[in-house]
Amino acid sequence: MKRILYKYLSRWTTLSEEDRQAIVDQIHVAPFDKGTVLIRQDETPAKCYFILKGCVRQFSIDEEGREVTSNFYTEEQAIAVFNHHKPDRSSDYTFTCVEDSVLVVGDLDTEQDMYDKHPQLASMTRRMIEESYGQVQAEFSAFIESSPEERFKALLGKRPALVDRVPQHQLASYLGITPESLSRIKKRLRNDSHPPKFKS
Amino acid sequence: MKRILYKYLSRWTTLSEEDRQAIVDQIHVAPFDKGTVLIRQDETPAKCYFILKGCVRQFSIDEEGREVTSNFYTEEQAIAVFNHHKPDRSSDYTFTCVEDSVLVVGDLDTEQDMYDKHPQLASMTRRMIEESYGQVQAEFSAFIESSPEERFKALLGKRPALVDRVPQHQLASYLGITPESLSRIKKRLRNDSHPPKFKS
Repeated sequence: MKRILYKYLSRWTTLSEEDRQAIVDQIHVAPFDKGTVLIRQDETPAKCYFILKGCVRQFSIDEEGREVTSNFYTEEQAIAVFNHHKPDRSSDYTFTCVEDSVLVVGDLDTEQDMYDKHPQLASMTRRMIEESYGQVQAEFSAFIESSPEERFKALLGKRPALVDRVPQHQLASYLGITPESLSRIKKRLRNDSHPPKFKS
Repeated sequence: MKRILYKYLSRWTTLSEEDRQAIVDQIHVAPFDKGTVLIRQDETPAKCYFILKGCVRQFSIDEEGREVTSNFYTEEQAIAVFNHHKPDRSSDYTFTCVEDSVLVVGDLDTEQDMYDKHPQLASMTRRMIEESYGQVQAEFSAFIESSPEERFKALLGKRPALVDRVPQHQLASYLGITPESLSRIKKRLRNDSHPPKFKS
């Protein structure tokens, strides 16, 4: 599984083979069972993650006790909480594994040491953050203007596998609709397209 | 106006007075008239910005020609386009000044030189990006779960001045509703609260 990380480093840095190997050797990769809570809402995270395999859901419990799914992360996406404005830097979200997953686990305490040792790693993670920022901006912008059906179609177009990988009530929450509305949309689209593009 | 920048650097870095002054001296600050287009959709930006005074709107024109407002930036917020996945790195959004504004103008070509000269500047901008990322994540999450009226109330709570600073049809677009719906919501809230918290 570390080979994926090695390939990723080759793609995004110009590090020597030796340096890449040194980074991969130092980095902690671990399997996590489906259902594992990685970061808990209102707690201060000590770790950040990078997905080699699997799927992680981001959600929060709002004031009325409703669960709101705000993202799904899959292969080659980073998971980190940025709450510089909060004194305790606690997380506004819970992150849990939707599937059995294999993740790179980064230690926020030793992050700076790694960057000092390998400055290219700092540029690479900066780029990863910029990329995530660009993505969430684009998703937000698309969400504002689209109807639930348009949102579902866009998701099918951009991340077709995701639709079958996650529980449907969580997917509905992510789309800002009820599970019943999602069923109706899927039924409507199934009737329009042969063969169906997703499981019923 | 450069004093604001100087204070910002004092707050977020441990640079010496001399280094701070050197950065402030090198940095380009310019006034922009209301209506100025800073970055145009589908063009590759050469600059990034940081607002010392004023307000900048981010929007895009969708496939059906509709204008979708996806953000408003005000004092001490950074404006940058991150599109690493696009070969030409062109912007998905247009950014225009909603008010006469004073902005720090960063040159993307010489950005790396500035970071090499002042490594703390790299950490500071990294922090700024992380902060913006955290903000847009939070806004997106809140948007998914809330009704238009809840969204408007949340905006009044978090950024009360903004509501009076921007054209109402753009504000409506940002809230994902029609200008008529926004008027109705404002009227309803005005009738509920004395004195009114915003201009009619």
